[in-house]
Amino acid sequence: MINRAPIITLTTDFGYKDHYVAALKAVILGINPEARIIDISHGIPPQDIMAGAWVLRNSAFLFPEGTIHVAVVDPGVGSDRRPVAVRMNRHLFVGPDNGLFSLLSGADSAEVYELTDPSYWRETQSNTFHGRDIFSPVAAHLSLGAALGDVGVPSGELLTYRWATAIVDEEGIQGWIVHIDSYGNLITNIPGALITAEHNNNLKIYVGTHILKRVSRTFADVSPGEAVAVTGSSGMIEIVINKGDASEMLGVQKGAPVSVIYQK
Amino acid sequence: MINRAPIITLTTDFGYKDHYVAALKAVILGINPEARIIDISHGIPPQDIMAGAWVLRNSAFLFPEGTIHVAVVDPGVGSDRRPVAVRMNRHLFVGPDNGLFSLLSGADSAEVYELTDPSYWRETQSNTFHGRDIFSPVAAHLSLGAALGDVGVPSGELLTYRWATAIVDEEGIQGWIVHIDSYGNLITNIPGALITAEHNNNLKIYVGTHILKRVSRTFADVSPGEAVAVTGSSGMIEIVINKGDASEMLGVQKGAPVSVIYQK
Amino acid sequence: MINRAPIITLTTDFGYKDHYVAALKAVILGINPEARIIDISHGIPPQDIMAGAWVLRNSAFLFPEGTIHVAVVDPGVGSDRRPVAVRMNRHLFVGPDNGLFSLLSGADSAEVYELTDPSYWRETQSNTFHGRDIFSPVAAHLSLGAALGDVGVPSGELLTYRWATAIVDEEGIQGWIVHIDSYGNLITNIPGALITAEHNNNLKIYVGTHILKRVSRTFADVSPGEAVAVTGSSGMIEIVINKGDASEMLGVQKGAPVSVIYQK
Repeated sequence: MINRAPIITLTTDFGYKDHYVAALKAVILGINPEARIIDISHGIPPQDIMAGAWVLRNSAFLFPEGTIHVAVVDPGVGSDRRPVAVRMNRHLFVGPDNGLFSLLSGADSAEVYELTDPSYWRETQSNTFHGRDIFSPVAAHLSLGAALGDVGVPSGELLTYRWATAIVDEEGIQGWIVHIDSYGNLITNIPGALITAEHNNNLKIYVGTHILKRVSRTFADVSPGEAVAVTGSSGMIEIVINKGDASEMLGVQKGAPVSVIYQK
Repeated sequence: MINRAPIITLTTDFGYKDHYVAALKAVILGINPEARIIDISHGIPPQDIMAGAWVLRNSAFLFPEGTIHVAVVDPGVGSDRRPVAVRMNRHLFVGPDNGLFSLLSGADSAEVYELTDPSYWRETQSNTFHGRDIFSPVAAHLSLGAALGDVGVPSGELLTYRWATAIVDEEGIQGWIVHIDSYGNLITNIPGALITAEHNNNLKIYVGTHILKRVSRTFADVSPGEAVAVTGSSGMIEIVINKGDASEMLGVQKGAPVSVIYQK
Repeated sequence: MINRAPIITLTTDFGYKDHYVAALKAVILGINPEARIIDISHGIPPQDIMAGAWVLRNSAFLFPEGTIHVAVVDPGVGSDRRPVAVRMNRHLFVGPDNGLFSLLSGADSAEVYELTDPSYWRETQSNTFHGRDIFSPVAAHLSLGAALGDVGVPSGELLTYRWATAIVDEEGIQGWIVHIDSYGNLITNIPGALITAEHNNNLKIYVGTHILKRVSRTFADVSPGEAVAVTGSSGMIEIVINKGDASEMLGVQKGAPVSVIYQK
C-alpha cells in the first residue's frame, strides 16, 4: 500500500544500558532490512504500563498512517496475557494486551488479533523476552505486507485499563496527577477544554499545599520560580514551575489529588 | 541541491522517558517521510541552554553540509524569544534564538530568519511545545526544499550568550570549568593551543585543592586513579582522572576556577 | 556484496548527555551518507569493558550478515592497546582490542586486523577520542567497500578477557552474577542448559541469603514480589523478582557467588 520503507516505532521499558532494545532492532532488520526503526522511548519506568500508555497516547498517531508501533511493557510475559496485533486509525500496534494500548483514541473500535501463528515468530521463543521473539518479528512481517489475519485470529476487544475520568460537577472538578515528566511538570487528568473563560476568571486550583488562581496561557506568564497551571501540549492541565521542577519544589507525587473549585 | 534523503538532527533537553522526542520525529516524518532523523542528544540538562550550545558546538559541523539541525532547549517558550531558522557554514539550524546557537563557529556571520509564516507550522500551536508545533515542521519543510525566505524574514543577528573567554596575561591563564561530561571529566574554557611547549615545561595548574604540573599528551600518561590535564577532543584543556571520575574524586563543580600559572 | 544501505551499529559508554555519540554518527555520515546507523547502547557503565562485551554478545549476531559494529569502551585510549577491525561470522567489528569482543561466539577464530593506515582516519587524531577519529571513519570506509586488508594488517588473535566459567562437578555448580540489567535482574554465568530435568527436581540455588528450590519456566510462575530462578533470554540462569527489582530486594551485587547444589 505504501512503497517507501515502512516505519516501525519502538516503545519499551528496557532502558538504555542493556542489549534488549538492540535485540528488537536486530530481529526486525534481519527480517526486513528496509524497515526504518524509530525509537519512541525506552525510558518507560520498569513495568509501568500506564506510563507506556501515556507516551503512546501522545505520540503514536502523530506518525504517518501505516506506521507500525511495537510496544513492550510486559510484566506479565510468560503468563496468560494475550500477545496481540491491533489496527486503530490506520496504524498497527503489536505488543501485549495488558492495557498498554488503552489510552489511544481509537481503542474502543480497535480491530484486535491474537497472535497465534508461530511461523511469524523466532524459531524458538524464550519465556521472558517476547519482544525479541514474538512482537518484533511479527511487526517486521507486517511491514513486509503480511495481513493481521495471517499473523493472528480476530479476538474480541482490547483490555482497557483507563485512568478514572476527572469528576465534574457544578462546584468544580476533582482530578489528579497522572504523569510527571522529566522536567518535573505535573500532568493532570483534567482536560483544559473543561475550563471556560468564565470559570477561569473565578476559580481556585488546589494541588498539594499550593493554590493557583487561574489557568494561564503559558508558564512564561509568571516569574521564574513561580507555579502556574497551563493547558499542556497534551491538552491536559499541567502544574508547572517557570524554569523549575514542580514535582520537587511542590513535593507532589503521581496520584496526588488536584481540585478545581469555582468561586461563587 | 542534494538528491539523497536529507539529514535532520535533533538536540533537546526532553530526556528519554517522555513522548516529547517522539513527537518531533513523528511530525517531521509526517511532512517528509524520507527524512533521515539522527539524535544528537536528548540528555541536555533541563533548560541548560549553554550545555546545549556546547553539544552543538562539538558535533553539528561534523555532519555533512546541508544537514538541518533542530535544537530545542527552550525555557522561554511562550514568551518573546524569537523562533528562528539560521544558515551557518552551509548548515541550517532551527530553534529558539536564546543563545543555543552561540558557540558555533559561524555564529557571527549567520544568516538569521525569524519564523513568521504559520503555513509552515502545525495547524494549531500550543504555547508550551514549539518543538513539535513550529520547529520540527519548519525543519521538515526546509528538508523538502523550502527556502529560509519562505519560512521567515531576515532578522538581524543571533542572540549570543558566550562564555567569557579565559583571561590571559604574562603570568598565566585564568579560566574555569564550563562543562562536566558523563565520565566526570572537567572541561575548561582554556584552549590547549594557548600552552606552548616552553610554558608546559614550567607551569602549575590549580583546580580545586589539586595542583598539576603540566598538560599531558593523554590520560594514559599517568597511573589509574591519578589526575591529569590534557587537551581534550574539543580542543580545550580537560582535567581527567585516568580510569576515574574527576568531578567526583576532586569534588569540583561546573563554574569552578582553573588557574594556569607560569613559573619563573 | 549487498546493494542496500549498509548497517553500522554503535555500542559505547559515552552516555546520552554529551556530544560524543553524535560525533561518531556525523563522521560516519560525512564519509558514507547512505550508512544506516543503529544504536545498540550508549549506556554501558563508564569504562566497563565486560559490560560492553556482554551487550555485544547478546545482540551483535542478531543483526543481518554484513553488519558493521563499532564498539568503543576504551579506558586505554592513548596507551598501547591496539585499534582493530575484526571479521567474525560474516560480521565486522571495529574498536579497541581490549576484551570488548571477548564474549562473542566466534572470537576464537576471528580474523583480526590492526588498524595501521591513517589515510582511512580523520586527518588529525586526538589522543583521547579514537571513536571519532579512527574507529568511525574506518567503519564508514568498510561500509563503502574497503577491505580489512586496506585499513590494516593481519595481526594475531584478539585479546580475550573471559569471565571464568562456572565450576561444574557432581555436587553442583559454582558460578556468580556477571551482569545486573536495568530491571535489577541478576544474570549468572551458569548456562540454563546445564540443569537437567532430573537435577531440577532436587536442587537448591543459593544466592545472597536466599535459597531457591528449582529453575522455573518463567517468572510468572511465582507470585509478584517473590524471587525465582529462570533460564533468561540470553541462555543463562537469572535470579528475578516477579514484578520487582531483585538486585535491590535481595541486596545482591555484581560478582556475588551463586551456588547450585544437587540434593542426594
